[in-house]
Amino acid sequence: MISKLIKKIVETDAPIVVGLDPQMKFIPQHIKEAAFEEYGESLEGASEAIWRFNKEIIDKIYDVVPAVKPQIAMYEQFGIPGLVAFKRTVDYCHEKGLVVIGDVKRGDIGSTSESYAIAHIGKIKVGSKEFTPFDEDFATVNPYLGSDGIDPFVKVCNENDRGLFILVKTSNPSSGEFQDRLIDGKPLYEVVGQKVREWGEASMDGDYSNIGAVVGATYPEMGRALRKIMPKNFILVPGYGAQGGQGKDLVDFFNPDGLGAIVNSSRGIIAAYTKDAYAKFGDKNFGDAARQAVMDMKADINGALGK
Amino acid sequence: MISKLIKKIVETDAPIVVGLDPQMKFIPQHIKEAAFEEYGESLEGASEAIWRFNKEIIDKIYDVVPAVKPQIAMYEQFGIPGLVAFKRTVDYCHEKGLVVIGDVKRGDIGSTSESYAIAHIGKIKVGSKEFTPFDEDFATVNPYLGSDGIDPFVKVCNENDRGLFILVKTSNPSSGEFQDRLIDGKPLYEVVGQKVREWGEASMDGDYSNIGAVVGATYPEMGRALRKIMPKNFILVPGYGAQGGQGKDLVDFFNPDGLGAIVNSSRGIIAAYTKDAYAKFGDKNFGDAARQAVMDMKADINGALGK
Repeated sequence: MISKLIKKIVETDAPIVVGLDPQMKFIPQHIKEAAFEEYGESLEGASEAIWRFNKEIIDKIYDVVPAVKPQIAMYEQFGIPGLVAFKRTVDYCHEKGLVVIGDVKRGDIGSTSESYAIAHIGKIKVGSKEFTPFDEDFATVNPYLGSDGIDPFVKVCNENDRGLFILVKTSNPSSGEFQDRLIDGKPLYEVVGQKVREWGEASMDGDYSNIGAVVGATYPEMGRALRKIMPKNFILVPGYGAQGGQGKDLVDFFNPDGLGAIVNSSRGIIAAYTKDAYAKFGDKNFGDAARQAVMDMKADINGALGK
Repeated sequence: MISKLIKKIVETDAPIVVGLDPQMKFIPQHIKEAAFEEYGESLEGASEAIWRFNKEIIDKIYDVVPAVKPQIAMYEQFGIPGLVAFKRTVDYCHEKGLVVIGDVKRGDIGSTSESYAIAHIGKIKVGSKEFTPFDEDFATVNPYLGSDGIDPFVKVCNENDRGLFILVKTSNPSSGEFQDRLIDGKPLYEVVGQKVREWGEASMDGDYSNIGAVVGATYPEMGRALRKIMPKNFILVPGYGAQGGQGKDLVDFFNPDGLGAIVNSSRGIIAAYTKDAYAKFGDKNFGDAARQAVMDMKADINGALGK
């Protein structure tokens, strides 16, 4: 699966993933009104608004980025109808040829971890038939429970040619509370990074492993260190834009081959129309604003990479 | 919410939670056949089988235990229909007066964590209306991302009088890979336990906090240490039975008041009928086998507690 993502990154010349985190406050009024009119002020109405918003964004960006990252929490908060909108979004992204990174941050042990893996990147057998429940290409995973939690995910990955991004150093201000604490002189995130390298060794797909890591753009020095610890693991980099990261901070997340990282922006893209720089597009053209924000992000990152 | 759980623990004299983790292999053939006959060998068919299995178990145990703990991964693997069965199970447990601990192990940051909290223990506004998406009483949460991840959960808890159980020391063999590593001479799980104590201080509900911890029955010495570090935080104890824990290992998870812990058993109860000790009940009476297994577990734990 990582080779498919790399091919699309090279084709689009954009090591960029668009986070589809459609909070209601980012959805233009005209979309919400139309959805509520048809489905009521209900979980169904909100989920329909989310879907229509997503579809417009996807239609405007699918040819200029390799991948999207729907954040399942934003759908799960609308219950079953919200998760129907999540699944509809995943399927539509696949129709448009996008790689889908399910930002689900699941993590448990044994058969429970395997069930999560099946739900998001695997297949389930029912009697004599087989189904793909949510069918993302990659899933994000939390490592706190150790190898018992990760191994079942890796197994399902390998069986289905899918991928993982395991949380190593997250982008938030308090990520250091536990992740930066020193263990035998090394911060916990490096200990986890070393394990990601090991977990990924049996999942090579070309030059990189299908098992990657999440490292926040807000911590460029730690990104540099982790890049060396995990030379063959792709890094998913959140925290660009709204959380403070910029292109110049990202250089060391990449390998000398110009690959090895994919940078996420969520509200910086999907809510671009609400920002002064893109206000000229107006509410109705929020999709065009998103496309322009992708182009600007691409120029920023590729400029920093000297491309 | 913790005071409600405590009241039910005292009434039933059972510091026990039944894990509703209905793997297909635990569901008797006659239930699967009937569900597949009506709904096909499909995600809907599997989810109907899960629901019928759960309902029978709940009907047989609701008056002898205070709480259940559905493991959402086991439902999520059947996609949308699976999550419908999850929600149906939560609602039915509430109808029967049970406290519901959603074993969801979610965890993210900021607005994303808040969305997960809303999904499971909160309310969502849509226009002028309000909805409770999954509506559990407690949720389990992963602390790897630090306070930025936990604070939004605590906020939603406090607004809705619900509760959390935060992963501290998990029951699995490899939990020590990260959780046991020493930080300034103290294992990470103690550092996290100290934070649970702090996070819980503003959520007191009687003698205990609505913010609890997960500590595995398989590590009784660590349970003893954590009991002292978090005197006012309830401990949810997985790992009893199938994972190896026994009543005598659990004594130090409790406070001198006889409270402070609730012990989970999943397959030891719901799949009791598959074990030699309960084989006499037969497949058809799996619910009666589950009830008997609860009674035996209660005797084991209360015996160890000298009750």
